Amino acid sequence: MKDIKVLKSIQEVREWRAEVGQVAFVPTMGALHQGHLDLVKKASELCDNVVVSIFVNPAQFAPNEDYDQYPRKTVQDIELLKQLNAVSAVYLPQKEEIYPRGIVLNVEEQIGTFAEVKGLSHQLEGAIRPHFFRGVATIVLKLFNIIEPTFALFGQKDAQQCVVLKNMVKDLCLKVKIVVCSITRSESGLALSSRNQYLSEEQKNIGLTLYKALVLGEKLFNEKTDPKQLVQKVIEYIQSESRVELDYIKLNDPNTLEEITSPDQLKNGGLLSGAIRIGGVRLIDNICLGCQL
Amino acid sequence: MKDIKVLKSIQEVREWRAEVGQVAFVPTMGALHQGHLDLVKKASELCDNVVVSIFVNPAQFAPNEDYDQYPRKTVQDIELLKQLNAVSAVYLPQKEEIYPRGIVLNVEEQIGTFAEVKGLSHQLEGAIRPHFFRGVATIVLKLFNIIEPTFALFGQKDAQQCVVLKNMVKDLCLKVKIVVCSITRSESGLALSSRNQYLSEEQKNIGLTLYKALVLGEKLFNEKTDPKQLVQKVIEYIQSESRVELDYIKLNDPNTLEEITSPDQLKNGGLLSGAIRIGGVRLIDNICLGCQL
Repeated sequence: MKDIKVLKSIQEVREWRAEVGQVAFVPTMGALHQGHLDLVKKASELCDNVVVSIFVNPAQFAPNEDYDQYPRKTVQDIELLKQLNAVSAVYLPQKEEIYPRGIVLNVEEQIGTFAEVKGLSHQLEGAIRPHFFRGVATIVLKLFNIIEPTFALFGQKDAQQCVVLKNMVKDLCLKVKIVVCSITRSESGLALSSRNQYLSEEQKNIGLTLYKALVLGEKLFNEKTDPKQLVQKVIEYIQSESRVELDYIKLNDPNTLEEITSPDQLKNGGLLSGAIRIGGVRLIDNICLGCQL
Repeated sequence: MKDIKVLKSIQEVREWRAEVGQVAFVPTMGALHQGHLDLVKKASELCDNVVVSIFVNPAQFAPNEDYDQYPRKTVQDIELLKQLNAVSAVYLPQKEEIYPRGIVLNVEEQIGTFAEVKGLSHQLEGAIRPHFFRGVATIVLKLFNIIEPTFALFGQKDAQQCVVLKNMVKDLCLKVKIVVCSITRSESGLALSSRNQYLSEEQKNIGLTLYKALVLGEKLFNEKTDPKQLVQKVIEYIQSESRVELDYIKLNDPNTLEEITSPDQLKNGGLLSGAIRIGGVRLIDNICLGCQL
């Protein structure tokens, strides 16, 4: 079994990094599931050296969100990674080094340097979580600067995150290459998520409504249905399940996230994405129609 | 005479960078004066390879500022640098590569990725130029990512810029080391600036009021004058020259930029800085009291 180096300080990462060649990087918040492990496997196909970071990033949680409750299972996570036999190093960032002037969840009181990807952060997930992508972009930028990866792998499940980060890399002239990997689903089709553990088995079944609705959307897309009608029918499908609270279903350009309302806007394909709530737990999912992220 | 490589694309910079060892970087907006040349000389003492960038950065100009009028003298600038015999490469960033999704001066309409250094960007110069340091931090971050310098040199004249950038480097876990160089002044004492060319000789003489006031502040500091009184006397000195319009005089902590109003806040020394206007032209200057930036 491949020995995993556990790195805790920036200095340790830099020393490790100086010794190795190309590196593929999988940033995570821990509570690893098969989706993460699939990213790691893909990473190990790209480079001999794979580094996984585990850090529940305070800057991407709003004060009313689940920062304190978010599952933390570092010991089990490292054990899981060891069994994969594909990871060279795990980096466990220390909050004090990552946010040297401290970090509070209330954005108005935050000090320090933040990366904002304007134009791609306010819609979809950003509409109800206005500072979420600022927090994501900032931590990922810091991790890129510390690790200096050749590749960085992200799951398509967080589709808007992928679009935001690809644009950040281009805008900030970073050298890393972003690799987007397909969504890992349970046998029934539910997109895997660390937050799924907040759900009962029955709720997970109800949660499938979102995926089924997206698959319906894909069928309608293949039948050349008008985009407005397509979205409307996907919404109606979800609304027919009374135990689901619908947040949104949207069809967007996969590069600019511009909302698609007419067929001529579909020349780059479309990202069909949505969010629902079941008993207070929020689930997101998406499907790419005629495109890749 | 050392031959200077003129680099115009990110790709050209990366290829050049891969060939050389440690690099000292002097970012400029061109219209080079002795202050820039002093930075270059200092850079050449740090590394064999010095790269100077020349780019009038739109993102740090407000719509009402002098972006279009800002002096552009690239040919002369390169000639000046050649004569120094200390520069390996000049990088002339192309706006389309630096701002791939375009850049407008109106912040509300901007899209793309921006770096914000919260807590250090809203006071002093940031008070009247609320998005200035966001523009500065963003372009410097991009240039750091392109050039990957070992050292980057900045003049103390833009003191708040130095504090903002040092903090950005720390916050974003960048590897570059910021080197702050002392202010280059004319024989009479006027801090050199590309914008001084907007001034007549008489106006330059009037402009000296700011420096003389700061020197008075230094004398009062050495005499252990109470900070509030010190600032008040410096302000009164400037106000005694009726042809000068005072923007501000402030005494701040050199690390946090917290305003200093009592002697116990002076344990890290103080940054005494100010801005004045003469016939519509704005001049800034500063002096470090018992500290270095």
